[in-house]
Amino acid sequence: MANIKPSVPKGTRDFSPSEMVKRNYIFQTISTVFRKYGYQEIQTPSMENLSTLTGKYGEEGDKLIFKILNSGDFWSDADKKKQKTPDFDYSSKSLLPIISEKALRYDLTVPFARYVVMHQNEISFPFKRFQIQPVWRADRPQKGRYREFYQCDADVVGSESLLNEAEFVLIYKEALSLLGLKDFTIKINNRKILSGIAEIIGKPKLIVDMTVAIDKLDKIGIDGVTKELIERGFSPEDIEKLKPVILLQGSTLEKLEQLKAVLSSSETGLKGISEIESILGYLKGLTKLSAEGMSSFLELDITLARGLNYYTGAIFEVKTNEVAMGSIGGGGRYDDLTGMFGLKGLTGAGISFGADRIYDVLEELNLFPESTSETTKLLITNFDTEAEMYALPIIQALREQNIAAELYPAAAKLKKQLSYADGKSIPYVVLIGSDEMQTGELTLKDMQAGTQEKISLEALIQKFKN
Amino acid sequence: MANIKPSVPKGTRDFSPSEMVKRNYIFQTISTVFRKYGYQEIQTPSMENLSTLTGKYGEEGDKLIFKILNSGDFWSDADKKKQKTPDFDYSSKSLLPIISEKALRYDLTVPFARYVVMHQNEISFPFKRFQIQPVWRADRPQKGRYREFYQCDADVVGSESLLNEAEFVLIYKEALSLLGLKDFTIKINNRKILSGIAEIIGKPKLIVDMTVAIDKLDKIGIDGVTKELIERGFSPEDIEKLKPVILLQGSTLEKLEQLKAVLSSSETGLKGISEIESILGYLKGLTKLSAEGMSSFLELDITLARGLNYYTGAIFEVKTNEVAMGSIGGGGRYDDLTGMFGLKGLTGAGISFGADRIYDVLEELNLFPESTSETTKLLITNFDTEAEMYALPIIQALREQNIAAELYPAAAKLKKQLSYADGKSIPYVVLIGSDEMQTGELTLKDMQAGTQEKISLEALIQKFKN
Repeated sequence: MANIKPSVPKGTRDFSPSEMVKRNYIFQTISTVFRKYGYQEIQTPSMENLSTLTGKYGEEGDKLIFKILNSGDFWSDADKKKQKTPDFDYSSKSLLPIISEKALRYDLTVPFARYVVMHQNEISFPFKRFQIQPVWRADRPQKGRYREFYQCDADVVGSESLLNEAEFVLIYKEALSLLGLKDFTIKINNRKILSGIAEIIGKPKLIVDMTVAIDKLDKIGIDGVTKELIERGFSPEDIEKLKPVILLQGSTLEKLEQLKAVLSSSETGLKGISEIESILGYLKGLTKLSAEGMSSFLELDITLARGLNYYTGAIFEVKTNEVAMGSIGGGGRYDDLTGMFGLKGLTGAGISFGADRIYDVLEELNLFPESTSETTKLLITNFDTEAEMYALPIIQALREQNIAAELYPAAAKLKKQLSYADGKSIPYVVLIGSDEMQTGELTLKDMQAGTQEKISLEALIQKFKN
Repeated sequence: MANIKPSVPKGTRDFSPSEMVKRNYIFQTISTVFRKYGYQEIQTPSMENLSTLTGKYGEEGDKLIFKILNSGDFWSDADKKKQKTPDFDYSSKSLLPIISEKALRYDLTVPFARYVVMHQNEISFPFKRFQIQPVWRADRPQKGRYREFYQCDADVVGSESLLNEAEFVLIYKEALSLLGLKDFTIKINNRKILSGIAEIIGKPKLIVDMTVAIDKLDKIGIDGVTKELIERGFSPEDIEKLKPVILLQGSTLEKLEQLKAVLSSSETGLKGISEIESILGYLKGLTKLSAEGMSSFLELDITLARGLNYYTGAIFEVKTNEVAMGSIGGGGRYDDLTGMFGLKGLTGAGISFGADRIYDVLEELNLFPESTSETTKLLITNFDTEAEMYALPIIQALREQNIAAELYPAAAKLKKQLSYADGKSIPYVVLIGSDEMQTGELTLKDMQAGTQEKISLEALIQKFKN
């Protein structure tokens, strides 16, 4: 066997112990909040039938799905096809369905829809599920973009109630606050408002062009947006009608009032406004905060478009204001989630947390609790067989009190053992030498402070039990 | 889009909320014990380079690795090859390296070895890691055998100390006891003892044949083993020498004494015995139990062979005695784990828990704690808008105390709401009607008992806070 220097595939990562503890901390914090709001965890297989995934993500998306080669003699199947169909033309496209029938999941939403349809008879609707699993995309890897990454989704299916949307706002608020974030904005919009706007300027069919352009307001400013709108087929008169909407100012309630006036002739637009008002109403009932009081974390953003072809009602996006970073969460309502698998009339709404970005934000703001860097609490040194034997009942007593402890597994120099503790971020080392064995008093070294103290086993247990 | 009834690929499974809670319970219990003994979690990517995996699992294993089709136009690469090499023969074997360069991991051990070699400069050795992730095998699916399943491994690399083996015995004992198992046997053997036996009967090269045969003693009895040994090239004289070893009787210490006599001329065999004695010595120091006292959970089994080509020292296997079930765990010591990636001289030892089988055992023995079936603790009913608004601050107050609670998201008949609670195993329902809104006293229904009581919000919070 050649000894090639081993590597991982492009766009994939190993997670070290210290990274895992931090990642688990994020996932556990978010899961706890999901559960508190009645969301239950499911998992789906990493592989789905190719037919389940194909056609759900657009042509570009289909290309980014990782396909799995059929096991066994895949080529003989292609060969048979060629023999039966002499004008069969070998190409990636024609061969794909013959040599591959499975693929890695591309997101958690389509597998969730498939799950709901397959298990519809066992499910109590409304079904509130969360799911934290990796997904795979054959995207060109770049900084912050991986070919394998975790998604962290909560969705409810089978409930039209806007209470769900209000609770999503609170889930975001609570989870991000628990993670230590102090300044973040949950942006909310409604697809129906966007439709209403396209309607009143008389270009309902250009809604996608319109939203793609106004979604860029933050980046390219009103002049850039104007230019793009004209390129996309809007007239200067259209743009004059659009401007006051795009440049909406004031508090949430003021914005809603202005929108109501502008959209007064669009039933759809007014429906969108009333949905936002209902969500605010639920939030007020829950938190006792007025729309004004909520403005520190919730903002109506009429330019927010995010996956427009997908969402049919509320649209969410979450940004931190403490670090320059893209959105750390998003979601919305999508009618007819399960229609693609033949189960019509089930509406859904969902949100997602961007765990990788949240990780980077917490790292940058130094928000990971100190405990996430610790694993083992105590290392007991090992200088010779006698000390090792002496240490055995001690380590057992510590573990019986659920204190994570290790005995260095062989006699070694102190320096080596301390460096092991250091490398593993073990905060305390128990030294056992001839003195300690004679007196029964152990020596406890605080690795951070560099100090040492004498301590009995009972006192040691008491110290670390809590 | 055709509406085909959706399904999951053969040999894969969805996990429902109630299954997930139980699976998490198993994984969390085992992880907690791993951590207590100083093992730290890592994760590796689902995909590895095909070159990392190929040749590590034997020819049969290589066939069972799921390969991932290169993204993009895989066929044009095959085409180019054909143009450059006109006598290139299309076959699955010749095409594979051209159209696939990545594969799904087949186990956690090879990725771990790859991890250690790649990160050797960041790691503090001895490196104690655990890993709980899915693996994929293109095996023919059958009852209890899946194409995607979780492995749950702990390994230490870079330590020869037999303290590690002793701690593995305690990890098994503690984790299985925590999971509620009362009667299980951790079988232990040593590859060097098996080598010694093959040596003293003068057939060292037939060690694999010998162990394959005697490994079947449980199933086919001594006559079957004799027959198979003869087929595999052993003489009746060899078998006469083997019999007393295979049929070893008595306590662990008695067995060891008999083995010492039989293996007195084999240095390797005696080394194996002394390793077992060292492990027992560590266990005695840790638990204060004699070999006799340990016999309720630890058994020397000289016929245990398990992955012989792999292990070089201790060999473990764990069985429950409460249910008929294959082994629920296994492991051992393997020298030169990382040699396959060019890093020589690192010895390793590891164990694995069979999570799927443990799940089935706990299910059959009804050992899952009742709390694993609960998710949301309380459902608040929703009969009309007024009651809904009344309920909002109540649900908020409950959640502020970290009580997982749900408000049924729309007005509906009581029966429907109770059936929702039932389907989700929610143990309590809070009923809010006009009476409750007038008096402020809520009605709490115990779903299990079917009883109802009046309760204030404060008392409700007190009841569920603990």
